[in-house]
Amino acid sequence: MSRIPRIVILGAGYGGVVTAIRLQKHLNYNEADVTLVNKHEYHYITTLLHMPAAGTVKPENVRVDISKLIDEFKIDFVKSTVVQIRPQDKKVILEDSTLSYDYLVIALGGEPETFGIPGLKEHALSIRSLNSVRYIREHIEFQFAKFKQEPQRKDYLTFVVGGAGFTGIEFLGELADRLPKLCREFDVDPSLVQVINVEAAPTALPGFDSELVEYAMSALKEKGVVFRLATAIKECTEDGVVLASGEVIKAGTVVWTGGVRGNRLLEDAGFETMRGRAVVDSYLRTKEYDHVYVLGDCSIVLNEQGKPFPPTAQISVQQAEVCAHNLIATIRNSSLKEFSFHNRGTVASLGKGDAVGIVGQRKIKGYKAAMMKKAIEVRYLYNIGGIPLVIRKGL
Amino acid sequence: MSRIPRIVILGAGYGGVVTAIRLQKHLNYNEADVTLVNKHEYHYITTLLHMPAAGTVKPENVRVDISKLIDEFKIDFVKSTVVQIRPQDKKVILEDSTLSYDYLVIALGGEPETFGIPGLKEHALSIRSLNSVRYIREHIEFQFAKFKQEPQRKDYLTFVVGGAGFTGIEFLGELADRLPKLCREFDVDPSLVQVINVEAAPTALPGFDSELVEYAMSALKEKGVVFRLATAIKECTEDGVVLASGEVIKAGTVVWTGGVRGNRLLEDAGFETMRGRAVVDSYLRTKEYDHVYVLGDCSIVLNEQGKPFPPTAQISVQQAEVCAHNLIATIRNSSLKEFSFHNRGTVASLGKGDAVGIVGQRKIKGYKAAMMKKAIEVRYLYNIGGIPLVIRKGL
Repeated sequence: MSRIPRIVILGAGYGGVVTAIRLQKHLNYNEADVTLVNKHEYHYITTLLHMPAAGTVKPENVRVDISKLIDEFKIDFVKSTVVQIRPQDKKVILEDSTLSYDYLVIALGGEPETFGIPGLKEHALSIRSLNSVRYIREHIEFQFAKFKQEPQRKDYLTFVVGGAGFTGIEFLGELADRLPKLCREFDVDPSLVQVINVEAAPTALPGFDSELVEYAMSALKEKGVVFRLATAIKECTEDGVVLASGEVIKAGTVVWTGGVRGNRLLEDAGFETMRGRAVVDSYLRTKEYDHVYVLGDCSIVLNEQGKPFPPTAQISVQQAEVCAHNLIATIRNSSLKEFSFHNRGTVASLGKGDAVGIVGQRKIKGYKAAMMKKAIEVRYLYNIGGIPLVIRKGL
Repeated sequence: MSRIPRIVILGAGYGGVVTAIRLQKHLNYNEADVTLVNKHEYHYITTLLHMPAAGTVKPENVRVDISKLIDEFKIDFVKSTVVQIRPQDKKVILEDSTLSYDYLVIALGGEPETFGIPGLKEHALSIRSLNSVRYIREHIEFQFAKFKQEPQRKDYLTFVVGGAGFTGIEFLGELADRLPKLCREFDVDPSLVQVINVEAAPTALPGFDSELVEYAMSALKEKGVVFRLATAIKECTEDGVVLASGEVIKAGTVVWTGGVRGNRLLEDAGFETMRGRAVVDSYLRTKEYDHVYVLGDCSIVLNEQGKPFPPTAQISVQQAEVCAHNLIATIRNSSLKEFSFHNRGTVASLGKGDAVGIVGQRKIKGYKAAMMKKAIEVRYLYNIGGIPLVIRKGL
């Protein structure tokens, strides 16, 4: 008797959700059993997390209930946390149960990369989940409340953002929009507030077009952000950061956006990884097991120069489309597709009504870029949830 | 040459603001120089502070800019903190200057009375100013954010309110209204939240009508409040409270509402005080100096049985009316008025749409009492700021 193959998808981020939706659409009933496993009952729009982190939008607005995205007659959803992946046994150990699979899709997302800088893990906040951004928002508001009780503690009003990559820049834009509102709400003199970006590289947005980088930096400077480029953080403490020079910046809040690594579960499972990210073949399968696919921040895809593409939502979605195709092809014994990344462009927001980006070969900035950023979000929501989701999120 | 007398009013709470407004209305130009000193540029409706503390209304809604209440052509406003009162020199030392006076009105408000219970001052929060209630609100929200990061820390979701007097009961009502909303916002199972009231007396609202006390307690119990009456707090720590029995309640939040004492500046100035409250004569003047008046929480007024009236907004306002009359009478050499308290009734809110109270001889409860509570606030706003203020506050 030939059993229906079991596909297990770990993670309902961009990679996992798009894979699940594609399988749901294209697999016929009885071709496979698909199970989606996720820690939360919701998917979130990771590219927008900097907004609820700064408190400029509500967390509810960047999340979508998984039950609204998948058809539970076609796909089983298991809300649980993955504890261990055992590829040799074709099993995944969850907090409270065990799943067997024939095909596995690992799309568990990344973790902050702290490059071994002491104290960052313990004392810095990071923008990585809905819970973490709610924490950041509350932490920031609490600094204002604390300052009003201890007005000599100006460090409560100092905000250090480590890293000037996309997440860092987008968060700075939102934070700079939010802080004047908090000053009004808490009767705080805005001149006491300091926002300092510390970046080890000699430029913000490394690798991005230099004209746009300049635009972004001057837009943020105008909002009060101070850039400390070519400046490494040596240590993060309870009271702030120590720079490589020995200089101490006392700050009630340190948000670390300096890097993303893969998920430790992949290293533990014995896959070949670089910084926790599994090396995959051109079909997105691990080197060790051709029935295990890895997508998104957990995977590493090299460009033509042999350098890894930066982990983005865009690449995850494109990988998911290929992964879903290859799973179906395997089941149907048809031919697999090779993955190649098509860069459709990149836009970084700089707060309300402002952004910079490259779409195709065109540089865009200002309001037009901000609208493009919205259009990208709308397209994504439309792709996963159709028009009702676009309307519900009011984007 | 006879100089115009200088009247200095310290504090812009109920007592200070009503005195200033009365003087502004009834004194002729050139009869006196009046200066009002306050720490903040705003007056706040102390009887509503439990609402922004729980986060059910915004702090802005319970405050009124002093510039909207006083006519700065008639009264000088000085935003400063009083450091010392020197009645022997007829001087008041402010943070950044010194004021001389001929007549002084001390209406500086009270401080939390902790009865020497160790740790309460350091670790418990108290509802005493706009800044302190903003702090409480942010602290409460932050507990939810922290719990989501450390779900084993159920104590973050335990809220202890010390004291079941008016402030304690009103705060419990608002808190019980707010917590389910926070549970929804932070995806927290409401059954994990605990609200515990600890009161040393054998009853809530001591001295109040027992039928109404029972109504209030069962309304709050229905909202999830657990009462621990006849239970003394032995110590407050960073982690919660230790009861007299030795039992420990681990709690991320302890709000102390157990008592009010007068202001330490009165003791320092050498006035005869009981728990920091100055003993005043029937004209509201200190025993030591007949040109120094004391109002509100800083003063002590005995009833016919020789027991002090509890400090309330109502008594402060009535004192202010008599104080203003007596100041004007002194300047004009007419006769002073004796103060006697007319209890117009008391209403305690129990959260949205519910309250208990006594008005005249009538007991009221439920929605009707809640409306009466609103009517009292409206009357006060009308008295100090007229119809525009009532409309602006939207009460």
